[in-house]
Amino acid sequence: MIRIAIHGGAGTILRETMTPEKEAAYTEAMRQSLEAGYGILYNGGTALDAVEAAVVALEDNHLFNAGRGAVLTHEGHVELDASIVDGRTVDAGAVASVRNIRNPIKAARAVMEQSGHVFLIGEGAGSFAQEIGLYMETQEYFITEDRLKQWKLLRHTARSVTDHAATSMEEKHGTVGAVALDAMGNLAAATSTGGMSNKKYGRVGDSPLIGCGTYANNRTCAISATGYGEYFIRSVCAYDVSAMMEYAGVSLPVAIKRSLDKIAAIGGDGGLIGIDAAGNVVADFNSAGMYRGWSDDDGTLKTLIFEE
Amino acid sequence: MIRIAIHGGAGTILRETMTPEKEAAYTEAMRQSLEAGYGILYNGGTALDAVEAAVVALEDNHLFNAGRGAVLTHEGHVELDASIVDGRTVDAGAVASVRNIRNPIKAARAVMEQSGHVFLIGEGAGSFAQEIGLYMETQEYFITEDRLKQWKLLRHTARSVTDHAATSMEEKHGTVGAVALDAMGNLAAATSTGGMSNKKYGRVGDSPLIGCGTYANNRTCAISATGYGEYFIRSVCAYDVSAMMEYAGVSLPVAIKRSLDKIAAIGGDGGLIGIDAAGNVVADFNSAGMYRGWSDDDGTLKTLIFEE
Repeated sequence: MIRIAIHGGAGTILRETMTPEKEAAYTEAMRQSLEAGYGILYNGGTALDAVEAAVVALEDNHLFNAGRGAVLTHEGHVELDASIVDGRTVDAGAVASVRNIRNPIKAARAVMEQSGHVFLIGEGAGSFAQEIGLYMETQEYFITEDRLKQWKLLRHTARSVTDHAATSMEEKHGTVGAVALDAMGNLAAATSTGGMSNKKYGRVGDSPLIGCGTYANNRTCAISATGYGEYFIRSVCAYDVSAMMEYAGVSLPVAIKRSLDKIAAIGGDGGLIGIDAAGNVVADFNSAGMYRGWSDDDGTLKTLIFEE
Repeated sequence: MIRIAIHGGAGTILRETMTPEKEAAYTEAMRQSLEAGYGILYNGGTALDAVEAAVVALEDNHLFNAGRGAVLTHEGHVELDASIVDGRTVDAGAVASVRNIRNPIKAARAVMEQSGHVFLIGEGAGSFAQEIGLYMETQEYFITEDRLKQWKLLRHTARSVTDHAATSMEEKHGTVGAVALDAMGNLAAATSTGGMSNKKYGRVGDSPLIGCGTYANNRTCAISATGYGEYFIRSVCAYDVSAMMEYAGVSLPVAIKRSLDKIAAIGGDGGLIGIDAAGNVVADFNSAGMYRGWSDDDGTLKTLIFEE
């Protein structure tokens, strides 16, 4: 049994504002990500390699708020966060507020495997990535025309963008992520984001935080979250799903549902993808839509954007 | 029922290397911290105010690895992390890698109450603290002679200090923290640290991470952790204690014991303090010692350093 699931963010994704061209582009991007991850699993590769490859595909695609095409900070920079967890050992790695690393998810994995630490941030994390030879890019690589336009509209507003009506999904919760189960029975999870548009003061959300945005444990499940980060941190959301499964014997779909209900109860919204040790896949959300996709039992790749 | 507990770090604290003068100084410092927090609770104040005051006292005391007297990074700076959680609402605030904020725990609380966010890091967090009027200090304020000596010994070593035998407790796990229950039945938790001595690459441990180093929820408990941060992150330690209580119906002492056992099983060590909603206090650790103190039922303040 091999399985993979991905997301490209949850939020106010409405049929009314979606053009056929845009829908086709997102669908194609998600398919490429799924194919990258599923191909690795199909060839006997690890869940860790699969989630990394799936997230790299989404980071490299300018449509998503991660890697190239990420939102800009108040100061006009792209600052990226990412994390990865290996469910076999619950080893973990994460980076936050990194500026020039082409693929933050690769940096997160390198932190896990080569740094002796779990969490590196800011310029220090950038130095680490450079020293171990990860691809570095100038800010120009990351900044797309759409994001620059969005930033110019937002930068003179006093408050960060989540206080405003979002004109597009990515302004709210445009995180990407992947979860996978490999043929050896190992789970893994990965999450990557540009965070909140027009963010100030070094704001970091749940995506790089182990147990909040990302968690994996072979005993329970692999989880990647996307949503209004502050609520997901306060809920320790990804680990909460795992804890409900481990300590209360709840199934993955029920644990994810309860976790999202708790987030809604305190005012937050977003979505979660998860895979359990038996290969069950869940993609659930309490926002208007979520870019999401997964492999079926027979290897068919499915993608969805709106509610079913 | 009002209760407070504090810690000043866990690690290789040995009777052999402790002088009577040093022991008296640590005991007095812990007593001052407990008195600051307990006084607030006794006068009808909130658990949140109590844990903040108790941690401020430890940050201001040069003996502990938090605020003044914190360890130096590889580059010779003091970079501080802190977090706070209000068990009434599970509101939370945290800062990481801040350089000039006199009391990082006050910055964490201000993030919670005034920023609209949960986690601010680096220079951005410093700008926020300055804008809202928190006390800022030069690096000289934080750097004590002992720490400078320690740094000069360590800075030319290639690896961070946890790979070496610690010459003093603080080099390993010198975090401070407090948990409290107030007369209104509300819990709160706070943690503050200078992190790892000779740390590089913007390394951040568990202390500023909600659910890892700090957690509080009126339904279960308030927790502050101290230890080898990487293992506490991977264990999502503070929230794990709460989850065992909530989902498995385990008592606070048993949940803390199990959590420390899990950390030991993956190679980590350290300690936890906790208070549950009924006012039971636990201070447990799997290292040689932990600076710790608490108020008894009758308001007596107790402090301990070594194993009982």
